[in-house]
Amino acid sequence: MPQARKIINDPVYGFITIDHPLLLQIISHPYYQRLRNIHQMAFAHLVYPGAVHSRLHHSLGAYHLMCMALAELKSKGTDITPDEELGAKLAILLHDAGHGPFSHALEQELIKGAHHESISLMIMQKLNDELDGQLETAISIFTDQYPKKFLHQLVSSQLDVDRMDYLNRDSFFTGVAEGVIGYDRIIKMLAVKDGNLVVEEKAIYSIEKFLLSRRIMYWQVYLHKTVVAAEKMLIRVIRRAKELISKGEKLHAATASFDKFLHLSGDKIAVAGLLDDFCRMDDHDIMATVKNWCDHPDKILSVLSRAIIQRKIMHIRLQAQPIDEAFRKEKSKEIAALTGLETGDLSYFVFGGEATNRLYNLDNESISILYKDETLRDISEVDNALINIKISEPVKKYYFCWLRV
Amino acid sequence: MPQARKIINDPVYGFITIDHPLLLQIISHPYYQRLRNIHQMAFAHLVYPGAVHSRLHHSLGAYHLMCMALAELKSKGTDITPDEELGAKLAILLHDAGHGPFSHALEQELIKGAHHESISLMIMQKLNDELDGQLETAISIFTDQYPKKFLHQLVSSQLDVDRMDYLNRDSFFTGVAEGVIGYDRIIKMLAVKDGNLVVEEKAIYSIEKFLLSRRIMYWQVYLHKTVVAAEKMLIRVIRRAKELISKGEKLHAATASFDKFLHLSGDKIAVAGLLDDFCRMDDHDIMATVKNWCDHPDKILSVLSRAIIQRKIMHIRLQAQPIDEAFRKEKSKEIAALTGLETGDLSYFVFGGEATNRLYNLDNESISILYKDETLRDISEVDNALINIKISEPVKKYYFCWLRV
Amino acid sequence: MPQARKIINDPVYGFITIDHPLLLQIISHPYYQRLRNIHQMAFAHLVYPGAVHSRLHHSLGAYHLMCMALAELKSKGTDITPDEELGAKLAILLHDAGHGPFSHALEQELIKGAHHESISLMIMQKLNDELDGQLETAISIFTDQYPKKFLHQLVSSQLDVDRMDYLNRDSFFTGVAEGVIGYDRIIKMLAVKDGNLVVEEKAIYSIEKFLLSRRIMYWQVYLHKTVVAAEKMLIRVIRRAKELISKGEKLHAATASFDKFLHLSGDKIAVAGLLDDFCRMDDHDIMATVKNWCDHPDKILSVLSRAIIQRKIMHIRLQAQPIDEAFRKEKSKEIAALTGLETGDLSYFVFGGEATNRLYNLDNESISILYKDETLRDISEVDNALINIKISEPVKKYYFCWLRV
Amino acid sequence: MPQARKIINDPVYGFITIDHPLLLQIISHPYYQRLRNIHQMAFAHLVYPGAVHSRLHHSLGAYHLMCMALAELKSKGTDITPDEELGAKLAILLHDAGHGPFSHALEQELIKGAHHESISLMIMQKLNDELDGQLETAISIFTDQYPKKFLHQLVSSQLDVDRMDYLNRDSFFTGVAEGVIGYDRIIKMLAVKDGNLVVEEKAIYSIEKFLLSRRIMYWQVYLHKTVVAAEKMLIRVIRRAKELISKGEKLHAATASFDKFLHLSGDKIAVAGLLDDFCRMDDHDIMATVKNWCDHPDKILSVLSRAIIQRKIMHIRLQAQPIDEAFRKEKSKEIAALTGLETGDLSYFVFGGEATNRLYNLDNESISILYKDETLRDISEVDNALINIKISEPVKKYYFCWLRV
Repeated sequence: MPQARKIINDPVYGFITIDHPLLLQIISHPYYQRLRNIHQMAFAHLVYPGAVHSRLHHSLGAYHLMCMALAELKSKGTDITPDEELGAKLAILLHDAGHGPFSHALEQELIKGAHHESISLMIMQKLNDELDGQLETAISIFTDQYPKKFLHQLVSSQLDVDRMDYLNRDSFFTGVAEGVIGYDRIIKMLAVKDGNLVVEEKAIYSIEKFLLSRRIMYWQVYLHKTVVAAEKMLIRVIRRAKELISKGEKLHAATASFDKFLHLSGDKIAVAGLLDDFCRMDDHDIMATVKNWCDHPDKILSVLSRAIIQRKIMHIRLQAQPIDEAFRKEKSKEIAALTGLETGDLSYFVFGGEATNRLYNLDNESISILYKDETLRDISEVDNALINIKISEPVKKYYFCWLRV
Repeated sequence: MPQARKIINDPVYGFITIDHPLLLQIISHPYYQRLRNIHQMAFAHLVYPGAVHSRLHHSLGAYHLMCMALAELKSKGTDITPDEELGAKLAILLHDAGHGPFSHALEQELIKGAHHESISLMIMQKLNDELDGQLETAISIFTDQYPKKFLHQLVSSQLDVDRMDYLNRDSFFTGVAEGVIGYDRIIKMLAVKDGNLVVEEKAIYSIEKFLLSRRIMYWQVYLHKTVVAAEKMLIRVIRRAKELISKGEKLHAATASFDKFLHLSGDKIAVAGLLDDFCRMDDHDIMATVKNWCDHPDKILSVLSRAIIQRKIMHIRLQAQPIDEAFRKEKSKEIAALTGLETGDLSYFVFGGEATNRLYNLDNESISILYKDETLRDISEVDNALINIKISEPVKKYYFCWLRV
Repeated sequence: MPQARKIINDPVYGFITIDHPLLLQIISHPYYQRLRNIHQMAFAHLVYPGAVHSRLHHSLGAYHLMCMALAELKSKGTDITPDEELGAKLAILLHDAGHGPFSHALEQELIKGAHHESISLMIMQKLNDELDGQLETAISIFTDQYPKKFLHQLVSSQLDVDRMDYLNRDSFFTGVAEGVIGYDRIIKMLAVKDGNLVVEEKAIYSIEKFLLSRRIMYWQVYLHKTVVAAEKMLIRVIRRAKELISKGEKLHAATASFDKFLHLSGDKIAVAGLLDDFCRMDDHDIMATVKNWCDHPDKILSVLSRAIIQRKIMHIRLQAQPIDEAFRKEKSKEIAALTGLETGDLSYFVFGGEATNRLYNLDNESISILYKDETLRDISEVDNALINIKISEPVKKYYFCWLRV
Repeated sequence: MPQARKIINDPVYGFITIDHPLLLQIISHPYYQRLRNIHQMAFAHLVYPGAVHSRLHHSLGAYHLMCMALAELKSKGTDITPDEELGAKLAILLHDAGHGPFSHALEQELIKGAHHESISLMIMQKLNDELDGQLETAISIFTDQYPKKFLHQLVSSQLDVDRMDYLNRDSFFTGVAEGVIGYDRIIKMLAVKDGNLVVEEKAIYSIEKFLLSRRIMYWQVYLHKTVVAAEKMLIRVIRRAKELISKGEKLHAATASFDKFLHLSGDKIAVAGLLDDFCRMDDHDIMATVKNWCDHPDKILSVLSRAIIQRKIMHIRLQAQPIDEAFRKEKSKEIAALTGLETGDLSYFVFGGEATNRLYNLDNESISILYKDETLRDISEVDNALINIKISEPVKKYYFCWLRV
């Protein structure tokens, strides 16, 4: 039997305790260890040098908050069996296991049509097979088929421990103190009412603060213009490589696993057959490859690669209003003159689009506040509510990038 | 002219301000940006998942403390010219520029005979040439040839801003709160006496705490047994690869730059001619390569590589006394039986040695305390001194590793 | 000459440096030292046991932020003379010197018609006389007569260092993490445009967060129902004592100074003649007196006093809507039956009113955001502004208290 | 039934949860609420303005750590019944209930011969009577008569939660970061072996750090020279008042309760009969009284009182060596000449003595380290032990004070 108890130092929460052999087994599995080498925030560290924490660290953090939340609910009399407790902990531990290198940034570029959550589910199912069905409850909770809805809501909802951890952790590591949330207060105020997760009245201001922190993190960090530009550049490096390959050029990635994915074609790839390969890729594969391409004869590939490695990030405009057409044309003409490229190829060096909250969804699920008289009201309907249509609107900005020369 | 002022968020100090065009130029140079991809603490993150901060981050932090220290000394009347101020800032910014991938862990494995400080100096000299001699003062301070000794002492001595930052930053990111030091108090108490850096009497307990924190970080973190084992394994991967190459096997690194270094031979390599290649390597090159080698036909290479990537770190004993000979023999026999390997090759899977404070030197330089009556005493001679021969003894432990099967 | 430099440990900011003899003289003056014994947050510690920090501590904190702000503005090229710098520091150091015991809670009860700011001014003028006019500039800045308007705005405006410190400090000591503000970011973004204090565009989210923190602190802390009830009770203790005195009863305070104020009568008291006595009073005088009154033969006085000392705070309803008339009547009848008191006297044990932000004004002054193109926009007019009419509305709640029996 | 669950915000630990009706009853008792008005660190706030936290706050903090420690031990399989758990929590909650105003500073001055712990016990016994024996287990644990020794050791030993809280809390509020301890790590490493409290091997460095923090806090904070001088002055104010009273002078305290104690005489006072009066006194009684005495006709009384109130603390020398006799004589002569006082009375203005760790005992109890092989070793006997005779020696300094003129 493996050591049954492990304490992990965490700068955010102090200590994280793993106290079940199955949890230890999952954590030490290569599929999970891989997350160690995927930055939680992709290229955000180009602007916030501290933001180099990993997906593994985030999963452990979310797991820690899950432990706290379950303990709190149990102490308030909510019935949670040991099997359900373990299931919820496994579900959160593995919720991000399906992320590929650079997480959201490359999500649709490496494997078209496969959302990371569906890959997380595949991984859980594979582990479930390996472990003789010990993940059944976890899978049921993860896919929201488990009868006690609040367990899934802890994993995924407006107030889940995933968001609580990433907002808090991302704030911590970026040093953007404005994003820090009162996770302990919110967790202390969680309750279950009619099978659903709710928060007690006292937590109203903490919830408002939580929603505002999310807003701040989006605008100031997740959609920071340099970060957006860098991610768009990386997408174009991969796209260019695939284009060259499709034209019959011999082009290789630095690692065998990444090379396989680079040479895949087709719109919707059956990841299932490639799961093992997928689970060998992490940020290292991409970065080592981009480094090699710095000297590639294809100018577009090498210029973009070098710009990423040397942090010569493209110029970018990021604003609430659509980009002025005249400005776009002027910049296109400039870059075309400089590079001699024409439409098509030129679009690698001058391009625009909409930056939305692709990273994390701000959807319409509600947060229910439980009043002392046992009634429920949505957070947007409480007295003097701060949260109104304004801040719940989807976050969208227009960006326009052009080569730095 | 580049933007003349930049503020960087830092979770440790809040904000770091860069306010001179030359500093901004250095920071945006590819030689400096490379440090972004070298972990400050090599494999420590295998045990402390938060410890993924970079050498770039540490250099910026040390630079920040240098700014604070210089401002403090100036406010106390120490004469420091603008040129000296800039020089000291540049020197600390670049003091670690010569670190290769995995810093200390691979220092003697990749380029025999070249200490990272001598490479830092080469880099400064090259940048000095590129920038028309603007780094003259910085180089003079870095090499301790500048007349005002305290400037060099701020860069490198028992109480330099380098140590203050790394102890503090490493404590912060590992979550080992015991290592946090009162850097602000120490800096507020710095003074210059007869040209040398001293600390005022009031700081005695902070200094003692600083020395103790260093001790704690060594034993608990830098020489953590899992970290030691992982680093020894990585050294053996590189060593095995070089051995195979020297035997004529075709073996390649994942990236062009690392491949060049892998194929170098000779005891003392003239890095000078390879500086540009050296400055293209970072942790990504190593990790991508080790990932590729997981499937290499050479068993020794692939077993070690897979063990690193999947975090199946070798068993290790790490203790104050030499390892019992009988125990060593027993383990050797066990592993020999299991692997069928003989001496020589067996030493890749069973080995021992002494772990000393190779990471950072605990040398004999003194820390001078300045009393109110203007006399000086060494920290070890103050009333009720805590610091005595005991904790200033070199840190040494014996380790012994064997394959996890 | 007094020691010219003093470093004070502060849990909120680390260290506060006092580096001018005049500042040290002011700080060691009994008028200033008195603030040591006045709680910054009156009775908030009944709910938040950590909230026992003093007015002296807050003044020192605001002074520290002033030092940071002035240094920042100077580094950006704003012209500030040494005399102006000292003046601004003195002004903020003394801005709250006119607070009496329990600050806002008793402000209109002890000395009718005298706002604490007018008393702060009297104190500054008196010190100016004592110190041969060395506070001239400070007084001019404090009273907004100094030509460089931004200096007064640093002392008193929507974004002054007073608010920045109290929000931050109150959050820190209460443990209400949601109230913590990014003071360092805001200060780094301060600038002067056309003689007025503005903030750079980058600080928008920090400013929004600052305004939200204020909102949270009002609702969750400053207007916490138990705190409101306790303060209303203390007001009634003083009021009852004065009433008894006016009826000719012999009733004394525990201290000579407080006794004098208790026996004053008239609507608008000329504090000027009593300044020295006023400056001898602090929270101790009130609390010792209330303790003595626990055994006073007058039931109303002793019941209220005991309730305060033993923390048997009255029942309270605090809500956004006016209190239901039927409920008020019912409770009045209940308490009347229990105590045998009739209207008039009964109003000591059953009473209601409106709790507004009397503590700190949320007025209409604007916060100007400076864009990169040098234009100014109000914080409420920026893209995707969070701050709209909703959260800038005056904070008002209806309260209703009745005796706990 | 009173509300069965209460959450208290604490800046040090985040939240403290009280979840048993009996605990809530004890906390709301006037005997406990009184601790709200006793500074944990007496006059330390004269030097560290943040150090104004109360005994009540410390007790709540120690209670919180007790909850954590008990949960940890239970999760490791230690048998602890609900009754024992409640007993241990009650014992720690009330461990300091017997402290009088200004805690240790006045301990032997107000009531000769009665240590605060014996008064805490009296209070527990009285509450036990009031509450029909519900505190039996708590009393048995507090007085170390309970068979499971580790429960008492959690309340009082080298590693008790009392020390852990006060070191941590005092560090936090003073802002002396060097004193912060890794309480969470230590608590996670607690275990019970043969009925005694021990710590696991992994905690060695945290324990060393804990002991060093204590050392730092003693020298830098608890025995800070200004703090020592202020406390000695307050002792002399009380002593002078008693002397005047014993000479037949009419002299009164500001409050009735304090007045009673001032007029007591005899060496060993039977506090038992005065317990209720004792439990009405707090710092307010003393401070209001000292304020009144600022204008007393007795010069010695008024000079000392004013010096305290206005923070004109006496000059003091505090050093490791005995004070030089010649220096003492010279100062005595100086002050005698200035004041016209003779021996006896002069000793109010010029005096010396030894400052030892009267506040908290550094006794010889050991800390046992539990090794993986289940053997125990004392912390002073581990490999490379830092803790040796040197830092476990009693802390003693010589002080000498003389009037500031």
